[in-house]
Amino acid sequence: MTEAKTTDGLIDAVSWNSDGLVPAIAQDFKSGRVLMMAWMNRESLRLTASEGRAVYWSRSRGKLWRKGESSGHEQQVREIRLDCDGDTVLLLVEQRGGIACHTGRTSCFYRVLDGEQWQVNQPVIKDPGEIYE
Amino acid sequence: MTEAKTTDGLIDAVSWNSDGLVPAIAQDFKSGRVLMMAWMNRESLRLTASEGRAVYWSRSRGKLWRKGESSGHEQQVREIRLDCDGDTVLLLVEQRGGIACHTGRTSCFYRVLDGEQWQVNQPVIKDPGEIYE
Repeated sequence: MTEAKTTDGLIDAVSWNSDGLVPAIAQDFKSGRVLMMAWMNRESLRLTASEGRAVYWSRSRGKLWRKGESSGHEQQVREIRLDCDGDTVLLLVEQRGGIACHTGRTSCFYRVLDGEQWQVNQPVIKDPGEIYE
Repeated sequence: MTEAKTTDGLIDAVSWNSDGLVPAIAQDFKSGRVLMMAWMNRESLRLTASEGRAVYWSRSRGKLWRKGESSGHEQQVREIRLDCDGDTVLLLVEQRGGIACHTGRTSCFYRVLDGEQWQVNQPVIKDPGEIYE
């Protein structure tokens, strides 16, 4: 796919980094809980907008990542927001299964700083072995 | 400041990127609103933890940025969270003045995607000229 300059407002308003990516925060539409942060390239943002479900770019696997494709924990997108500098995207989502994290927890932000140590303070809802079997 | 390996749990649990930075999301403690995303280096995370107010690393200015130092819109930190991969920080904050954005809005995420266009859907609470005079 060529990345020629277009009049595509959706894409052009975003300040893509030198790798052609932008961080995307997913927030639960109902609870307001911040669920996770992942990355998007141009194609994943276009697909997220057109399909109405969160599609990220997996930096480790170097490919598109339709959230939930293996876990079933899809994210239905209710709203896509962009910040003032255009360098961060915020998704308001409905989290299927109530689990966003690959550890089987609601949110990936399950560690909280207590003094100098990070403490886990969210329960595992479903064993990852069951999620990814 | 040397970045020698320490047994500092606070710092070592974080997956710092190749620039020694980690993205930090600020969320309003009461409303749950996602306010902004900025970056931290090791020193800014340490200072945020010790001072109890958000201290970021300004990539454009190449220096520590005590949020609110010029605007007065400080962020008092109630909780610091870390995600499963250790590569994103989440701050739960009390936003002084109810304004996080340099445009004078509550949140930096004031644009929402409508079809192919981003639409502003948050009012300016205070004119930036008044904030930064």
